[in-house]
Amino acid sequence: MIIKKLETFANEFVGFVRVTSDTGDQGWGQLSTYNADITAEIFHRQVARHALGTDAIDFAPLLDRINEREHKFPGSYLRRATTGLDTALWDLRGKLEGKPVTALLGGKAGKLRAYASSMKRDITPEDEARRFLRLRDEKGFTAFKWRVGAECGHDVDEWPGRTEAIVPLVSRALGDGIDKLVDANSGFSPKRAIEVGRLLQDEGIGHFEEPCPYWEFAQTKEVREALSLDVTGGEQDCEFTAWEQMISMGAVDIIQPDVMYLGGITRTLHVARIGAKAGLPFPARQGLGSCATRTGRTPWPSSTPAPKTCSPTWTRGSSPSR
Amino acid sequence: MIIKKLETFANEFVGFVRVTSDTGDQGWGQLSTYNADITAEIFHRQVARHALGTDAIDFAPLLDRINEREHKFPGSYLRRATTGLDTALWDLRGKLEGKPVTALLGGKAGKLRAYASSMKRDITPEDEARRFLRLRDEKGFTAFKWRVGAECGHDVDEWPGRTEAIVPLVSRALGDGIDKLVDANSGFSPKRAIEVGRLLQDEGIGHFEEPCPYWEFAQTKEVREALSLDVTGGEQDCEFTAWEQMISMGAVDIIQPDVMYLGGITRTLHVARIGAKAGLPFPARQGLGSCATRTGRTPWPSSTPAPKTCSPTWTRGSSPSR
Repeated sequence: MIIKKLETFANEFVGFVRVTSDTGDQGWGQLSTYNADITAEIFHRQVARHALGTDAIDFAPLLDRINEREHKFPGSYLRRATTGLDTALWDLRGKLEGKPVTALLGGKAGKLRAYASSMKRDITPEDEARRFLRLRDEKGFTAFKWRVGAECGHDVDEWPGRTEAIVPLVSRALGDGIDKLVDANSGFSPKRAIEVGRLLQDEGIGHFEEPCPYWEFAQTKEVREALSLDVTGGEQDCEFTAWEQMISMGAVDIIQPDVMYLGGITRTLHVARIGAKAGLPFPARQGLGSCATRTGRTPWPSSTPAPKTCSPTWTRGSSPSR
Repeated sequence: MIIKKLETFANEFVGFVRVTSDTGDQGWGQLSTYNADITAEIFHRQVARHALGTDAIDFAPLLDRINEREHKFPGSYLRRATTGLDTALWDLRGKLEGKPVTALLGGKAGKLRAYASSMKRDITPEDEARRFLRLRDEKGFTAFKWRVGAECGHDVDEWPGRTEAIVPLVSRALGDGIDKLVDANSGFSPKRAIEVGRLLQDEGIGHFEEPCPYWEFAQTKEVREALSLDVTGGEQDCEFTAWEQMISMGAVDIIQPDVMYLGGITRTLHVARIGAKAGLPFPARQGLGSCATRTGRTPWPSSTPAPKTCSPTWTRGSSPSR
């Protein structure tokens, strides 16, 4: 079965790919979120041209070939575009076999535990606690993630004292029996991250995400070695070279590859295998606005709230007929 | 002095940036070559928005801020776009001070030795030798680079026997007193690269570029350790994390950052400093089609032939007035 047509439907925020085979079978995938319209351009220029006319079922060699042919473009954008192809082809395979992708990967579709993630820093500790308690009581969430520091913040808080206020207030409000996660979004130096990490440990938080600039693996490792809670990272990393370095040097306790940023399911499985060899746990995540889980065929849950509503302004592209 | 306007002029192959300050002064820079039209879109979406209204002279903090604000987009495209801003601002500064950028960096403008680079694999050994001898005799080149293997070729030659034929034939035709460089463009496994490297050494070649897939630093290191000639690499690498890893593990004898792919002059200086600490030589290069050197203000020569002729189909973008 051969890939005959590849179409994209994208706006600035989200984008989808429809693959059609020579037999008329179809699969749907998703380009990575954020600047998805530019990603769709890259998809038609640098991904579709290598995919058209190739095997729609045994596509792992194609994914490698795209990276080799486009080797002058390592990094995020090419991976974001390739995610659309990878997820569409997994969806197609699932449809042909009449199975969810979860089953193709050896898993089982079903309910998954999710955490409620704040996604905000402009919220006061009091409002955050109120919001979380409502979600706990109304929706039954048993895990919560909230934010400290400021994004790439160089030790400057969103406002003075916010970190020291929000950690104990929210943690104590949630009480016992709740898993508590905190995200610094690359906000701290190692010194400050260790200081904040000790506060987190004292307040029963078990997960400290991206304490330092995520690309500074040595800084993250320094924090990990000074603390007993889990230091986590990897959301933004999309190159296997970076993953191998991060894992082999012991920078994190938990790896967090993002299916959409990393280039799709096939590449995420590869990173999961690198992690497994080092004994690292792997709770996959997907970027805000990722709708791939809605097809019921992708294997991992979105760890974030419901997908953004898609604006009505779509740009449609098609290869080769565009 | 404040950055007031940023304009791009791009087609698929090359793209330029014009910066205008609040005082009406202007500088010209270049976006990286290849898919420069997409790069220009990224420039206006993800670079210009952070640059407008900021200091046009002391711009190093701005470059860091762009990478932090756009931290979900590590890798090539964002760096390619940022190169346009960086080179335009260096040009502006040179114009204001009435000096070539070379002088701003502590150097001196003048003649630079260049090597003649084949850029071809579909050429027979006999034709390559004929071409090089003409260049040697007519243009006075004293250094030449030609290609072996195939690009990301997995040990499969462009055609059977080409590597074993072209190395001795071209080297012996050029004769003594000529520096001889060979580029495998990620073509070989370590085993095959070492075999080819021994042939290169026997034939007086001193420089073996990208013997293995460039992102496989451990493979390149294995080749370097088995050979006495210089193993070189880094052209495609645009992340400091990758550079630090490559240099600290001793993967190469000579680092070859590409000013355009890496994100501009400021980032290239940073890589040069990492390399200098490890005692590595640094002959900077720029991608095919890079015209930045033509302004007479950028500090390094293009190591490649004359820039491509620009097609007449230009797309013009402008921030914020676009």
